[in-house]
Amino acid sequence: MYTGPERTYGAHLQLIRYQEDAYNEQQVDDVTQLAKLLAEPGVRWLNVVGVHDTKLLEDIGRALELHPLTVEDLASLGQRPKVEEYDSYLFMVMRMLTRHGQPLPTDTPAPATTDGTPAAAAVSALAAGPLHSEQFSLVLQDNLLITFQELETDPFGPLRERLRTGRGRLRKMGADYLAYTLIDLVIDQYFEVLEAYGDDLESLEEEILRGPQRDSLQRVTDLRRDLLVVRRAVWPLRDVMGSLQRKDLEYFSPDVSNYLRDAHDHAVQVMDAVETQREQLTSLHDIYLTLLSVRMNDVMKVLTVISTIFIPLTFLAGIYGMNFENMPEYHWRWAYPLLWVIMLSLAGGMIVSFRRRGWL
Amino acid sequence: MYTGPERTYGAHLQLIRYQEDAYNEQQVDDVTQLAKLLAEPGVRWLNVVGVHDTKLLEDIGRALELHPLTVEDLASLGQRPKVEEYDSYLFMVMRMLTRHGQPLPTDTPAPATTDGTPAAAAVSALAAGPLHSEQFSLVLQDNLLITFQELETDPFGPLRERLRTGRGRLRKMGADYLAYTLIDLVIDQYFEVLEAYGDDLESLEEEILRGPQRDSLQRVTDLRRDLLVVRRAVWPLRDVMGSLQRKDLEYFSPDVSNYLRDAHDHAVQVMDAVETQREQLTSLHDIYLTLLSVRMNDVMKVLTVISTIFIPLTFLAGIYGMNFENMPEYHWRWAYPLLWVIMLSLAGGMIVSFRRRGWL
Amino acid sequence: MYTGPERTYGAHLQLIRYQEDAYNEQQVDDVTQLAKLLAEPGVRWLNVVGVHDTKLLEDIGRALELHPLTVEDLASLGQRPKVEEYDSYLFMVMRMLTRHGQPLPTDTPAPATTDGTPAAAAVSALAAGPLHSEQFSLVLQDNLLITFQELETDPFGPLRERLRTGRGRLRKMGADYLAYTLIDLVIDQYFEVLEAYGDDLESLEEEILRGPQRDSLQRVTDLRRDLLVVRRAVWPLRDVMGSLQRKDLEYFSPDVSNYLRDAHDHAVQVMDAVETQREQLTSLHDIYLTLLSVRMNDVMKVLTVISTIFIPLTFLAGIYGMNFENMPEYHWRWAYPLLWVIMLSLAGGMIVSFRRRGWL
Amino acid sequence: MYTGPERTYGAHLQLIRYQEDAYNEQQVDDVTQLAKLLAEPGVRWLNVVGVHDTKLLEDIGRALELHPLTVEDLASLGQRPKVEEYDSYLFMVMRMLTRHGQPLPTDTPAPATTDGTPAAAAVSALAAGPLHSEQFSLVLQDNLLITFQELETDPFGPLRERLRTGRGRLRKMGADYLAYTLIDLVIDQYFEVLEAYGDDLESLEEEILRGPQRDSLQRVTDLRRDLLVVRRAVWPLRDVMGSLQRKDLEYFSPDVSNYLRDAHDHAVQVMDAVETQREQLTSLHDIYLTLLSVRMNDVMKVLTVISTIFIPLTFLAGIYGMNFENMPEYHWRWAYPLLWVIMLSLAGGMIVSFRRRGWL
Amino acid sequence: MYTGPERTYGAHLQLIRYQEDAYNEQQVDDVTQLAKLLAEPGVRWLNVVGVHDTKLLEDIGRALELHPLTVEDLASLGQRPKVEEYDSYLFMVMRMLTRHGQPLPTDTPAPATTDGTPAAAAVSALAAGPLHSEQFSLVLQDNLLITFQELETDPFGPLRERLRTGRGRLRKMGADYLAYTLIDLVIDQYFEVLEAYGDDLESLEEEILRGPQRDSLQRVTDLRRDLLVVRRAVWPLRDVMGSLQRKDLEYFSPDVSNYLRDAHDHAVQVMDAVETQREQLTSLHDIYLTLLSVRMNDVMKVLTVISTIFIPLTFLAGIYGMNFENMPEYHWRWAYPLLWVIMLSLAGGMIVSFRRRGWL
Repeated sequence: MYTGPERTYGAHLQLIRYQEDAYNEQQVDDVTQLAKLLAEPGVRWLNVVGVHDTKLLEDIGRALELHPLTVEDLASLGQRPKVEEYDSYLFMVMRMLTRHGQPLPTDTPAPATTDGTPAAAAVSALAAGPLHSEQFSLVLQDNLLITFQELETDPFGPLRERLRTGRGRLRKMGADYLAYTLIDLVIDQYFEVLEAYGDDLESLEEEILRGPQRDSLQRVTDLRRDLLVVRRAVWPLRDVMGSLQRKDLEYFSPDVSNYLRDAHDHAVQVMDAVETQREQLTSLHDIYLTLLSVRMNDVMKVLTVISTIFIPLTFLAGIYGMNFENMPEYHWRWAYPLLWVIMLSLAGGMIVSFRRRGWL
Repeated sequence: MYTGPERTYGAHLQLIRYQEDAYNEQQVDDVTQLAKLLAEPGVRWLNVVGVHDTKLLEDIGRALELHPLTVEDLASLGQRPKVEEYDSYLFMVMRMLTRHGQPLPTDTPAPATTDGTPAAAAVSALAAGPLHSEQFSLVLQDNLLITFQELETDPFGPLRERLRTGRGRLRKMGADYLAYTLIDLVIDQYFEVLEAYGDDLESLEEEILRGPQRDSLQRVTDLRRDLLVVRRAVWPLRDVMGSLQRKDLEYFSPDVSNYLRDAHDHAVQVMDAVETQREQLTSLHDIYLTLLSVRMNDVMKVLTVISTIFIPLTFLAGIYGMNFENMPEYHWRWAYPLLWVIMLSLAGGMIVSFRRRGWL
Repeated sequence: MYTGPERTYGAHLQLIRYQEDAYNEQQVDDVTQLAKLLAEPGVRWLNVVGVHDTKLLEDIGRALELHPLTVEDLASLGQRPKVEEYDSYLFMVMRMLTRHGQPLPTDTPAPATTDGTPAAAAVSALAAGPLHSEQFSLVLQDNLLITFQELETDPFGPLRERLRTGRGRLRKMGADYLAYTLIDLVIDQYFEVLEAYGDDLESLEEEILRGPQRDSLQRVTDLRRDLLVVRRAVWPLRDVMGSLQRKDLEYFSPDVSNYLRDAHDHAVQVMDAVETQREQLTSLHDIYLTLLSVRMNDVMKVLTVISTIFIPLTFLAGIYGMNFENMPEYHWRWAYPLLWVIMLSLAGGMIVSFRRRGWL
Repeated sequence: MYTGPERTYGAHLQLIRYQEDAYNEQQVDDVTQLAKLLAEPGVRWLNVVGVHDTKLLEDIGRALELHPLTVEDLASLGQRPKVEEYDSYLFMVMRMLTRHGQPLPTDTPAPATTDGTPAAAAVSALAAGPLHSEQFSLVLQDNLLITFQELETDPFGPLRERLRTGRGRLRKMGADYLAYTLIDLVIDQYFEVLEAYGDDLESLEEEILRGPQRDSLQRVTDLRRDLLVVRRAVWPLRDVMGSLQRKDLEYFSPDVSNYLRDAHDHAVQVMDAVETQREQLTSLHDIYLTLLSVRMNDVMKVLTVISTIFIPLTFLAGIYGMNFENMPEYHWRWAYPLLWVIMLSLAGGMIVSFRRRGWL
Repeated sequence: MYTGPERTYGAHLQLIRYQEDAYNEQQVDDVTQLAKLLAEPGVRWLNVVGVHDTKLLEDIGRALELHPLTVEDLASLGQRPKVEEYDSYLFMVMRMLTRHGQPLPTDTPAPATTDGTPAAAAVSALAAGPLHSEQFSLVLQDNLLITFQELETDPFGPLRERLRTGRGRLRKMGADYLAYTLIDLVIDQYFEVLEAYGDDLESLEEEILRGPQRDSLQRVTDLRRDLLVVRRAVWPLRDVMGSLQRKDLEYFSPDVSNYLRDAHDHAVQVMDAVETQREQLTSLHDIYLTLLSVRMNDVMKVLTVISTIFIPLTFLAGIYGMNFENMPEYHWRWAYPLLWVIMLSLAGGMIVSFRRRGWL
């Protein structure tokens, strides 16, 4: 049922409960306790790390009364972004994209929670590195949000900090606003990823216009494939965000709906950027091909100029290397200098003609 | 009326009847008995293998009161996936795709029913082999499902096993859930087919980037044609699955509707994957063409470098092979060594100039 | 007003009247009698052959109270397929396509009616021949169907036979079912045309992959233009068939509506096939271009290998053809054999280098 | 405010009033009289020639109570075809296209009205000449039609004649039918223009397939640009015609609505033809490029065959032009004839090898 | 939060209040006074220059009760054009495009207001210069319009002048008409930008058809990228203008709605023009590539003609430069002249053959 790569670390659950004036954070080891823990008042956020543990997913599904299809979707990792309304909850799948194996602000190196690498370092690391696509699922109920991620790292460190310290409006709002904030942070990561690709594109274009390298084509191909992955993550998300707003979903309060509209705008902007970059990539390939033709033209011109000048001259020299007994020119006094004059004028005439055609 | 390839084996009918606590499986030899057999209580699944026997189809159509157009559609094999609502039943056509002549878990080598090849072997065989597309039709009535397939092999072996043993929820649900399960199994096969094509694509890309072979182009063309076939099977299926959900069809209970939504998602995912692979194929063709240009450029550079260096030198050698009486250079003492010096400097200068142009 | 090619034969009208137990077929020479003839009971089918006789069309229009725009449309031959509802009748235009000047089962060589060539011969003739597109119009009223065709030949021979003999359900149904049957026969012809193009495409592809001929490009171009014609005939037909079903047209009984849905499916299938063939044609052109590049590469490699090996050797031979007095090598004993050794090693080295580059 | 080219002639107004049994035609010199003139009974058609006189347009706008935006649109000449409903009138803009500077049946050389050149001459002139696009605007009120054109020439000569003589149904109908007739005449011109382009396309294709000329590419480019202009004129017109029908516009009587549907069909047909021609043009460019490659291939083959045959032979001749003292072959008796034999066999072998590769 | 380039100048606010008979214009230095200033009667237009001062934006947001998301959107500069309805105001974002660093009629060199450069100079400057894209936001309330721009320059100088002098209908209308006028002026700028690009395109096409330069490809690429930017600014604007009309927004009076329809038309026209230019650019790239092939063909023909004529002749000369003792031709009397005759006929034959192939 689990369709991703093999994982060796254990899955674990983190439960955060908060109200405007209270905050509590704990590790959940015994899933059977879950129902009791979630029964307490306030907003509850249960974060499940490691969807490869299908046994755990099934236990959670049973404890929280999730539909079998939801549990199945959580573990099968190739999901397209989508939103589905079940009887008692809203289920949403989206993809987290980063440009390196480990997503950026790594606040959860262990199940514990502290801020790891500083943001600056993470951003500078982003510009390089291969694309990493991870599945991120949300289950939203009244005042309860359950999130599922593959790896322990995520971009939610600053958010957790704000929850802890009570800064901002987060603690004053419900689970729906928390869900919006998480979705928005994931979409914000797309912008970072696309900016990194934008930089790659620009440097690649400069490189190609300066003179294509042997591996330029390979890099164009790799970029194209990566952008296809990004596009498959973003394209359906646009509809998902749209339907989150439109549907008369009681899961989102009208106040949060304004924010969802904003997140929807962001998703559309990302889509726009992806399409623009894809077009640029196509035109880059065209430029590459065109430059190959330009270069071929240059090479051929040199070959043609040299051959066209010297082949007739060589022929003339060949003529007067012949050994016939009866060649009167051999005995003329000025024959040799005259031949040089003829040859030089011939070469000169050709050079003039090439100049006129713009080949020199 | 039958439009497929000629078949030599006889068509046969298998009838499975089940309830939560009962299971019965039998061969139907006499179609006239059909109405009586189907009148018994419980869910009934009639599987017809071999639609080339149009006489049999007509008999079944008469026994079950199918519309003439339905019977016609069953036998004309080029059908596009579609769903049609008739007065007393729902008719659906879709395509079963596999990557070898015989579809995978071959549980029906004879009209009898046992599991044949183990799943692992089937999957490994998949990666190779030509694409095989077969028509699969369903007629769904209240508690009665009739399916029609061309060949005896199908991917439903494990499902039959589950029905027999009573494992899972299958026996607790109606014919609509059985129909969903069959549809979902067929769609799951698409994923396997596309994964095999994905592997082909990847190895083809590697091969082309390493250095295109003579038959690379042929293989690109073959892949493109196959993906066109897959696309024609999947594209309309998306709409079919959508209309199965949307239409207020009394044939599907609300509970099963959730599952249909899931199958619809799968169909959309398959479509996505097909389109992505088609794009990759197009870009592969572009890369092939570009690499041809790159190679041509290399070839031309070598030709130009060699010609440009030696043609002028050969001309000089030709000059001093002439037989004029009055050629003073012939009598100079250092003429010959001097000529070598001139030639070597000429060649050296050209090599430097080629280096600067990046041709060497 | 008539926009087609000039026709020399006279237009004529054939009137068929039938009920479940009666059949009557006659030639109509006097249009003024038409109203009286059509007043009789039963289903009436008036077939007008030859729309170049605009005078006749106007007379018919007056006799049957057709709108002036309908009469105009009948005679202007470039019509796009369409359906229009007038106050007292339904007007429909579609195109009959065949792959030779005369459409296939030629049952009407004269206004009389007998079956001509057997079907098998007609089909074999189809695979060749240029595309022929003819306008076919229908006017459907309650129990009255009027059809207009340009030429006397049409694919309706077997249908007329069935009407005459009373086989099948035709005589039991109304004019709407007759209209459906005619439309369906016309659409069936599309399949035959497309199959013939499919054969052409396949043989063209084989030819190109085996080694493109001089006229391959011309044939690709011709095929593309033909498919454009087919597409313009089929694309709007899809919408026409759709609107025939959807509109609450009282002209079609609910029973016939099922059949129209089937014909609609066929139109969509034809459209699919056209688009697939167009894609194959595009990819065929790409393959042709790519193969040209492949061949150019081969040609250039041969040229480069030969030139690169022999040009330096010829230079060396040129050197020792010079006539300087003071060339010590001339007097060495082993100079000549040594030069051969040098030349052969040079050539050998180059061949090894070409092997390594994969040029040999 | 006026955005077109400068015009030197004066603008003028022609007013035609007609009823079933009356016809009156006059020149309007004083715009202030306009309101009084238009108050008379019957259908009135006011034709304004020369929209460069913005002062006049403003006067007309004030006299007829047109919205300022309408007046602005009349004078700014780059308008896209559109229809707009104002409080008391319907405003429509479309484009008149011709293939020469002066549009065809020039019935208004002066503000007066007589038929100029016969239609036949006009049509023959059409096939040549550059594309000319002119803005044509209509304001339709109850029984009043005001039209605005840039130049005095237009395709409405025959229509005016019919109005004068009272032939046809024109005089029996209202201003809405007059508007339809004008629109239809303008659309009919599109067909003529496209036919001329079709002829151009065909002759260009023949020329290219016979052997592309130096200016073929220029002509392809020019055709493409012209078709873009036509497309921009026609594409929005389709929607305009559609909305004329659909909107419950009281400006068109139900009877005229049938005619509008017909004009709509024509617009769609024009659009179809434009798209088809654009596709043909694209494929023509592809063919041009492909033929260039074919020719390059031919050129390269000749070069390669000649070089590959003679370069090794020249090398051999060079060998035996050397002056080493110790070259035993020089003294063999049959050396010279033997060399000829070797050379001829070498050349023969190569020719055979080229034949086998299909290069000769 | 602010995402644009760093700005060094201070942000400032200009408040204009007017009624039909009154006009007042002042600088706002203390944002806390804003609420009081805006409470006065008449239409009020508050123009904020410099959105890099996020502190100021927050103060304004607090004073005018803007939603936090609106304030965020104001400062994040990559916004896509959009319109959003909040509880008490309408928020709209669009982009101002110009073809030089400073937008044209620079009426606000300092926060003060006078007209700078005359329009003619500005327009002539337009044709050159890089594309400059600036974010322009509007907040529309009842009788209050707040606009936000990045730089002090804008195209609103003539409008301000009209407001001051009371010419036109501006002072008689509400804030909604003012908003329309600003939007229309911004869209009018697009036309100017596109005209400049049209000129660039035309000169580039001429240049390429005359003979492509080394930097032509670079210029095509730059143009393509610029048009992508324009397209991203205009494409969503079309929908924005559409929804301004359609939505039953109480912010626009029915009278102004007519004007919005006009502005919508303009946006569609701009979109059309952008798409047309993009197509022309694509076809320009194709032409460039084709011309490269044409030139290559020319180069190859010269090379082939020269090589093919002289290589065989050189071979003949080489033959008779050999030193075999026994070469009878050497002693023939007319051998040398005869060889010349042979050579000249050979060359002549080849020239004739090349003429026939059209290579000369």
